[in-house]
Amino acid sequence: MDDAVREEILDGTYRALCAHGYADLTIQDIAAETDRSKSLVHYYFESKGELIDAFLTYLYDRYTDYIGEERGETTRENLTSLLERLLDGDDSERLRTALLEVKAQAPYDESIREHLVEFDAALFERLRELVAAGVESGEFDAAVDPSRTAECLTAAVHGARTQRTALGRRRYHADETLTEYVDTYLVADGGREAAH
Amino acid sequence: MDDAVREEILDGTYRALCAHGYADLTIQDIAAETDRSKSLVHYYFESKGELIDAFLTYLYDRYTDYIGEERGETTRENLTSLLERLLDGDDSERLRTALLEVKAQAPYDESIREHLVEFDAALFERLRELVAAGVESGEFDAAVDPSRTAECLTAAVHGARTQRTALGRRRYHADETLTEYVDTYLVADGGREAAH
Repeated sequence: MDDAVREEILDGTYRALCAHGYADLTIQDIAAETDRSKSLVHYYFESKGELIDAFLTYLYDRYTDYIGEERGETTRENLTSLLERLLDGDDSERLRTALLEVKAQAPYDESIREHLVEFDAALFERLRELVAAGVESGEFDAAVDPSRTAECLTAAVHGARTQRTALGRRRYHADETLTEYVDTYLVADGGREAAH
Repeated sequence: MDDAVREEILDGTYRALCAHGYADLTIQDIAAETDRSKSLVHYYFESKGELIDAFLTYLYDRYTDYIGEERGETTRENLTSLLERLLDGDDSERLRTALLEVKAQAPYDESIREHLVEFDAALFERLRELVAAGVESGEFDAAVDPSRTAECLTAAVHGARTQRTALGRRRYHADETLTEYVDTYLVADGGREAAH
């Protein structure tokens, strides 16, 4: 099989998910996004399940690159810019809706579940790494526990993204709230002590 | 219509959702849970959409009672016991899976979306009220902002519940993590200052 064609089909899957969502997605929709025939898509991926499996691997590579980007000068800036991008990013609303549908299928589908565990672990590990780097450099308070803090932040990011997708608007200013959390509770000599 | 019969059908819907999930739920399944005929269920609720609408109102009443319970002696105990029940409660895994499926339908269904906004607002308001009561009584630090804190906690609760349902196990010890958050960051003269 030709890796370039495979990649082209996965690019088409990305566009088709943005256009049609997950539940109604057909191989025909994907073929239409690639200018390739339906039978060629079937040649590469025998079932929708196999295609979604490959697509989640494809998405995972992009996700780890995305969360690994360092857009700030300091660890605090790298952390808050990551939280802002995750919570208020310009990723397609339809793709987020499609991924919520995929997530709702996870309890029934072990392959999807395994992929989602990897996404989750990658985000947790990236957040833990950033918090630990901030503690190490003295930017964050020495009493901050990187693992516990990363667990809280991972849960809050998942919750804020899910609610935003499901409720169709940003119920809270989650990006501002988590930035304030970082400034108040993590940054050494931050807001809380200033209040004393 | 008879309110007792209506309630009986909604009780049956609860049991049917626990047994069959949301996607595959039929009026027949609900009738089977109630010892009533399918046509009687149809007489009360013309469509699955109408039934789910009524069911979410039924569930909302139970939810607000549940999150309003005061199980501790102090505000801190009331808050941590609520977080523990939300994150590690004994509610049916199948019901949680069914509700995640309902959530994934929200972007397509305004009625579901409106219900979920109400659930979300009730949880936020309850958490805000508890944090504010703790600040008022001096149990929590005077610098804690009840609204911001409630936003963080609401997002973290949603995220931890969704991940637990989707990933099929408790990826993190979310209840312990959030209890530690309360003790470290909210409780007056809590963990952080002790570390200095």
